[in-house]
Amino acid sequence: MILKWNGWGYEGEGIKQDKAKKILDVLSGFLGVSEKEYVEPVKLESIKIPEPRIKIKDNLDVRYDKYERVLHSSGRSYKNLVRLKRGNIKRFPDAVVYPKSKQDVIDIIEFCSNNGIGCIPFGGGTSVVGSVDTYDIDPERPVITVDMKSMSDVIEADVKSKTAKVMAGITGPNLEEKLRKFGLASRHYPQSFYFSTLGGWIASRSAGHFSSRYGKIEDMIESLEAITPKGIVRNHGFPSTACGPDIPRIFTGSEGIFGIITEAVIRCHKIPEKKISTSFLFPSFERAAECARNIVQNGVFPPLIRILDEREYMISSVLSGNTIESGSLLIVGFEADEENQKVVESEFEFVRRVCQKFGGTDEGKKRFEDWKKEYFEQPYLRDLLMDFCIIVDTLETATSWSNLINLYKKVKEGMESVIFSESIGGVSCRITHVYESGASLYFTFFAKAKFGYEEEFWWKIKKKASDTISENGGTISHHHGVGRDHKIWARKELKDSLIVIKAIKNNLDPKNIMNPENLID
Amino acid sequence: MILKWNGWGYEGEGIKQDKAKKILDVLSGFLGVSEKEYVEPVKLESIKIPEPRIKIKDNLDVRYDKYERVLHSSGRSYKNLVRLKRGNIKRFPDAVVYPKSKQDVIDIIEFCSNNGIGCIPFGGGTSVVGSVDTYDIDPERPVITVDMKSMSDVIEADVKSKTAKVMAGITGPNLEEKLRKFGLASRHYPQSFYFSTLGGWIASRSAGHFSSRYGKIEDMIESLEAITPKGIVRNHGFPSTACGPDIPRIFTGSEGIFGIITEAVIRCHKIPEKKISTSFLFPSFERAAECARNIVQNGVFPPLIRILDEREYMISSVLSGNTIESGSLLIVGFEADEENQKVVESEFEFVRRVCQKFGGTDEGKKRFEDWKKEYFEQPYLRDLLMDFCIIVDTLETATSWSNLINLYKKVKEGMESVIFSESIGGVSCRITHVYESGASLYFTFFAKAKFGYEEEFWWKIKKKASDTISENGGTISHHHGVGRDHKIWARKELKDSLIVIKAIKNNLDPKNIMNPENLID
Ligand SMILES: Cc1cc2nc3c(=O)[nH]c(=O)nc-3n(C[C@H](O)[C@H](O)[C@H](O)COP(=O)(O)OP(=O)(O)OC[C@H]3O[C@@H](n4cnc5c(N)ncnc54)[C@H](O)[C@@H]3O)c2cc1C
Ligand SMILES: Cc1cc2nc3c(=O)[nH]c(=O)nc-3n(C[C@H](O)[C@H](O)[C@H](O)COP(=O)(O)OP(=O)(O)OC[C@H]3O[C@@H](n4cnc5c(N)ncnc54)[C@H](O)[C@@H]3O)c2cc1C
Repeated sequence: MILKWNGWGYEGEGIKQDKAKKILDVLSGFLGVSEKEYVEPVKLESIKIPEPRIKIKDNLDVRYDKYERVLHSSGRSYKNLVRLKRGNIKRFPDAVVYPKSKQDVIDIIEFCSNNGIGCIPFGGGTSVVGSVDTYDIDPERPVITVDMKSMSDVIEADVKSKTAKVMAGITGPNLEEKLRKFGLASRHYPQSFYFSTLGGWIASRSAGHFSSRYGKIEDMIESLEAITPKGIVRNHGFPSTACGPDIPRIFTGSEGIFGIITEAVIRCHKIPEKKISTSFLFPSFERAAECARNIVQNGVFPPLIRILDEREYMISSVLSGNTIESGSLLIVGFEADEENQKVVESEFEFVRRVCQKFGGTDEGKKRFEDWKKEYFEQPYLRDLLMDFCIIVDTLETATSWSNLINLYKKVKEGMESVIFSESIGGVSCRITHVYESGASLYFTFFAKAKFGYEEEFWWKIKKKASDTISENGGTISHHHGVGRDHKIWARKELKDSLIVIKAIKNNLDPKNIMNPENLID
Repeated sequence: MILKWNGWGYEGEGIKQDKAKKILDVLSGFLGVSEKEYVEPVKLESIKIPEPRIKIKDNLDVRYDKYERVLHSSGRSYKNLVRLKRGNIKRFPDAVVYPKSKQDVIDIIEFCSNNGIGCIPFGGGTSVVGSVDTYDIDPERPVITVDMKSMSDVIEADVKSKTAKVMAGITGPNLEEKLRKFGLASRHYPQSFYFSTLGGWIASRSAGHFSSRYGKIEDMIESLEAITPKGIVRNHGFPSTACGPDIPRIFTGSEGIFGIITEAVIRCHKIPEKKISTSFLFPSFERAAECARNIVQNGVFPPLIRILDEREYMISSVLSGNTIESGSLLIVGFEADEENQKVVESEFEFVRRVCQKFGGTDEGKKRFEDWKKEYFEQPYLRDLLMDFCIIVDTLETATSWSNLINLYKKVKEGMESVIFSESIGGVSCRITHVYESGASLYFTFFAKAKFGYEEEFWWKIKKKASDTISENGGTISHHHGVGRDHKIWARKELKDSLIVIKAIKNNLDPKNIMNPENLID
């Protein structure tokens, strides 16, 4: 299977023709889109690419061909894809290397170090924040992108302790398949699951849709190994320790700027046998959020709990062919097996009671299933709409419960004001992860744009959202990371802590070869 | 109330005369201890202390008096106390400062920086690993100990989000009392609760007895502020974030070597109304451990779950006047209120079922209550026995489930071999914290020692335990920290990661004034 160089997924995948037509029909009413607005994406052949300026050791698996260099020129943000589709890319890695061993990684980093070459660790390349983008790196400086996907094995598993030592280049499906042989499961399911990798998750502090219970990736890492220009960094893995600062947590969120993560010991779980799930409809998003707060502050953490705001629920209903109902939908999913079923059932009952108390009505499993079906399809839909000059993108934040609705309203209003001042479109939102102290807000925005003006318009909307988040007590990212796109806001958010990050960076990577100009300056 | 300068707790506190007599009676049979072996601790007056070599700004609350300088000369390890009781202390801080504000802290650090003076952050001084000891610091170098206990307020609370911003010098009881006004509770109860402080907990990665559910202190910190010689480091607090590496986790476990933590936002919980607890007796420690593993790997985390091995259970029975029964005791405690009672009851039922399946018999609440009563008394008992030349101390580790019983046996055998080769005594153990991937082992050892030989003998036993832990897959500390006493093993354990810690240290504290020679060299 060949990855699309300019879109989501493998060649041949995408929204089926009839569904695409249906969606366009719906949108034509709303956004005035018609088939004649279709913009054919440029062909790979027409992209001009300069000669590579470097030559690495022959014993490494190096690719200099156009497909690989274009595929690795960026991540999968809206900006990345619209540039690729329009053939508007001018900066590429000089080479793409697929290390097969730690020694390969050491050799590559040494080569880059000795020659002052930029070195971009690359997992699935699904970053939506520019963290694998070659664009902004000094054009004079050669760059090698290091694709980790040839290092993708489960090295060993400790079935009794439910941990597994895994190579960093493994993708979601591959990981789960290999863990299953040991009766284990990671329960880490980001929407990008099919393509993103363990190393990328760690480097970006990724969250999966079960993370309200099992934690984000940083909670799952018992130990890791990273190769930095200064040498190998490794920590022993224990269930917990008080032996100095938390080394894995220094590398989670490091976005490739300290070194290349080669492996990690992850905390796993048993494979759930049954799922118990349903959905509740609330009169308002605010009410549903209050309900979720009450659930988790009572010590009950459903693996899956999401709340679609009124707009998001409406769109979801339309896309799955349901009647449009107003309200905000809370979906909840538990996992169980024979052994713990009774406990899980009582948690489920508890959730039901709290939902009813807060005015939610049980909508049953179907809404949940509809949502699930549609969930992994969303990225393909973004691709489709892009071809009709419709911007669709998502961004996310997190804040305390006491600030949640305030932030939600401000960000939504802010984005809508930019969209409506120039065009038509909309903003919807869902709560994707809940904590005892707060929750994350995940916004989807869409807008009709003029051909050629898409990126600029997209950035205007995104900038407004980010400014609003930053000024109103939200984090610039709950799980996508900082990358190159969020740097200006991260600088504000990290403020004083920047000296610590820079201390580590300057020491581990004194020549600044690792993912230069990413995360910090 | 005045803190004892050479023992646990406040002046006047301790084991009641009649109980002490009973304990000594029991021990006389077993260890051959008699009242004539009593060694009178030296008086404060007889301790010789050199003139302070420094003079700090008058606007600071500085103490130069003997009581303060002796009290702050060390922590509360066995070694510390035996030295104090025998008057065997030669190194003291030149001054003790109690900062009242951040500005005070900045001034102190600046003063130390400008004059190359060692600066030891001090919370409750309850460290048992030498992390506030002045002993090993170059005697030529003046040292200031910075006692944080005047900075002990809850600055603000966000009741809806269940978080509170708290000054680092606050002790356990003070924290809980102030949080209670907001309807909040931290649920962090280390055994040293009455005297240790938030800053000390953070700096040592402390665990409380409810941490199997609520997490260790590092899980509770949303943000913190630390003053380093390089400046203030602060992070914004969010329920979670992907904005770069995890800053608070860099300071948890830093043991005062990067700077002084002045405040933190901690994640709190509602105050539980009811407790549901019981105990189960198992045929063996191994069987009880297997049971605990099955409980947590099914996703049920009782706030309190501890397992006393056969020896520990025997001692506990004797001390609380129960009949001696053989077996291993698992005690379990849940917390609930009206709202979540049903869920908690079903978890409790689940625990009961699993315990029964693994051969445990319900011993009811009394054993639990006995244990609890005795729990906070244990440190006073150590003091008492010390006066009869009996070494009593504890040490702890953590490892994976698959290595737990192996490590348990090896450490126990190792320690016993040292004790029995020279004297009589014993080793007992309990599991104090459980995780899906493993558990902590908390050893208590006691041995009769010759007067004057106590410290050397203690160290022989402790060294053997630490070597065994280090060579057999345990961490050198699960929650006490590294300090100066565990440095040689921490160096092995941290190995490659040391470069990261040193990078931070050298950058934030280039003159090495912060807690010199602690944690790393
Ligand atoms: C459609 C879509 C849906 C998404 N859904 C989610 C979601 O549900 N949850 C979520 O958390 N994220 C989501 N993302 C964002 C993205 O998938 C995550 O950030 C993911 O963790 C990136 O993994 P990756 O392997 O693709 O990393 P890449 O995109 O290749 O790289 C991301 C960052 O990690 C670094 N990196 C990668 N591998 C290594 C390594 N081995 N060592 C050191 N650094 C490395 C890179 O240098 C870069 O800085 C989504 C993205 C898309 C496009
Ligand atoms: C009887 C007894 C029982 C114990 N039980 C437990 C237990 O159940 N769980 C547990 O985790 N530990 C326990 N301990 C160990 C000890 O109480 C903990 O390590 C505790 O966290 C130390 O807190 P403290 O305030 O006393 O810190 P201190 O002993 O004063 O200092 C400990 C370390 O933290 C640093 N430090 C203190 N305050 C700050 C600050 N504000 N900024 C920067 N650095 C700082 C010091 O420099 C030192 O390195 C016990 C100790 C004793 C003696």
